Amino acid sequence: MAEKKNVLLVGAGGVGTMAAVSLEASGRASVTAVLRSNFASVSEHGFNIESVDYGSLKAWKPTNIAKQVPDVAQDNLPPFDYIVVATKNCPDVGPAVEEIIAPAITQGHTVIVLVQNGLNIEKPLIKTFPQNVVLSGISLIGVAEKGHGNIIHDYHDELIVGAFKNPNIGPDTARAAAAEFVEIYSTSGKVACEHNENVDFVRWRKLIYNASFNPISTITGMDTTRLRLAKTPIETLVKPAMREIWNAAKAAGHDIPEEHIENTIHIDPLEVYCKPSMLQDVEKGNYIEYENILGEPIREAEKLGVPIPTLKTLYGLCAALQWKTKEARGLIELEGSNLVPNEG
Amino acid sequence: MAEKKNVLLVGAGGVGTMAAVSLEASGRASVTAVLRSNFASVSEHGFNIESVDYGSLKAWKPTNIAKQVPDVAQDNLPPFDYIVVATKNCPDVGPAVEEIIAPAITQGHTVIVLVQNGLNIEKPLIKTFPQNVVLSGISLIGVAEKGHGNIIHDYHDELIVGAFKNPNIGPDTARAAAAEFVEIYSTSGKVACEHNENVDFVRWRKLIYNASFNPISTITGMDTTRLRLAKTPIETLVKPAMREIWNAAKAAGHDIPEEHIENTIHIDPLEVYCKPSMLQDVEKGNYIEYENILGEPIREAEKLGVPIPTLKTLYGLCAALQWKTKEARGLIELEGSNLVPNEG
Repeated sequence: MAEKKNVLLVGAGGVGTMAAVSLEASGRASVTAVLRSNFASVSEHGFNIESVDYGSLKAWKPTNIAKQVPDVAQDNLPPFDYIVVATKNCPDVGPAVEEIIAPAITQGHTVIVLVQNGLNIEKPLIKTFPQNVVLSGISLIGVAEKGHGNIIHDYHDELIVGAFKNPNIGPDTARAAAAEFVEIYSTSGKVACEHNENVDFVRWRKLIYNASFNPISTITGMDTTRLRLAKTPIETLVKPAMREIWNAAKAAGHDIPEEHIENTIHIDPLEVYCKPSMLQDVEKGNYIEYENILGEPIREAEKLGVPIPTLKTLYGLCAALQWKTKEARGLIELEGSNLVPNEG
Repeated sequence: MAEKKNVLLVGAGGVGTMAAVSLEASGRASVTAVLRSNFASVSEHGFNIESVDYGSLKAWKPTNIAKQVPDVAQDNLPPFDYIVVATKNCPDVGPAVEEIIAPAITQGHTVIVLVQNGLNIEKPLIKTFPQNVVLSGISLIGVAEKGHGNIIHDYHDELIVGAFKNPNIGPDTARAAAAEFVEIYSTSGKVACEHNENVDFVRWRKLIYNASFNPISTITGMDTTRLRLAKTPIETLVKPAMREIWNAAKAAGHDIPEEHIENTIHIDPLEVYCKPSMLQDVEKGNYIEYENILGEPIREAEKLGVPIPTLKTLYGLCAALQWKTKEARGLIELEGSNLVPNEG
């Protein structure tokens, strides 16, 4: 049997941890997970996982855990074959993904797998690591971390992987890296991992949900069930936002099937009262990744001359919420104080 | 000296109470204020008012207070000359203003003064009471009720009054009613009350603030100072919303001066951290009056072929917040329960 692949996981929340489970379950990869807020808890107790795909995993741990991204050159470590990045991606508040993973990259060897949403996330990575393959991972999993190390995985893990276009790397090399990763990820037979080379199409299609339900749930504080029961938000917000993404995708050359809009509205089971990840983030006081999910599609649409007014308004509101989170974290100092409110 | 005018005040919050103060201060009107949530408190202690125009008024009361709208026919009361309506106007959640005030109306006599924001608020009144003059009151006051009967009035009371067009009533009659009301309201010399017959112009102009800062503050939970300090919400939300109102007003024949937009952005003193009334309403768990402030201008703009996409998105978000308030008040019953949140 071939030597196990050496995998670094950065971002061991729900999505990342379930990726680690599948990679380890293959028997073909050893995962080093970089843990931050949940390091102490996982170090002592491991992860407690209730998974729709794997059942109950008590005190589960990957091969290694680490407190920070290893510096392979400085510490003379064996190179990582893959780095799976499953952190939130918030370039407006930094630090950037390419800075975070830089110490663990071996030039021309390490394959970077971005399991993150939105458009153009590969650009800074390819610029910083031009000789490394960068893979796109679009996850359709339903999972949340409820308290440190407690993973509730309630919707089947389905990962769509393909190589981002990189002019410095031959397409065969890139394709082979994607195919290998998909093969390892699929080995357990419990999850679905699809190799799809039409990376941009897959990313635009995912935006139908992410650029609509994510910000609208976040701004209103309503789960997707409530938005659907209230009806008006679906008609006046969700559908127009989805249609704008659909139009922009079409102008960019991606024919998303018409019925994908209606299907996406109804994708979350009504009885689950789904909170999209962005709403979970604001509720935890975390930053939201609205730049790649809204900002980049808006900029692409404007380049293509596609009107995208609903998304622009949602973008402005997300920017306002991000500012509030910064204020709550003490990054913004206000002068004066709250005096008397005004009648407007 | 002529007999005092018999005035009924419906809606004795900040705006209504300060109107009562000015009317009583004229010596030419006796006010009966209908109190609801603050009846017990005001009945016992009166209003405590800190007013930028009138100074400290301790235990102040109008001539009469009442627990409900008097039924003049049934109780054989003298007719009201004026009914000043300063309630919130939420036709989507009712009861309608015309139903509330019906028992106090004397047909062909009582002048109705709507001190309320938004467009087309007079339509149901004129339909229900075709022989009564309906006046428009646009208030530029800064005032809030902090706890029952405690009125903090921190920005000069300026009321703009004019008669709504009513095909059943001669313009001279309507104009005379407006002029008389303005004269009484102004008598104290402490406040400004202007007679302006260009009622629609005044209402559209007020919407520059009300259709932008009100919903945007409400949706983001940010006062107008924070919105300005955060900058992006002003550029991506407030200015586009104001511009849409400006465009719609122009198409409707109202030339609002160009600089009114920039002036309105800066109208609230930065050090005051102004919370527009709609934000105060959601914070108190009250309904918001988004139908007349957003819904009607949107419908007017669409009739006129003016694109108004920002306002439409804000409208949808306000509808979502209104639904949440209904749910919080127990008017919406949900099946199932919150299970596991989903990763979107």
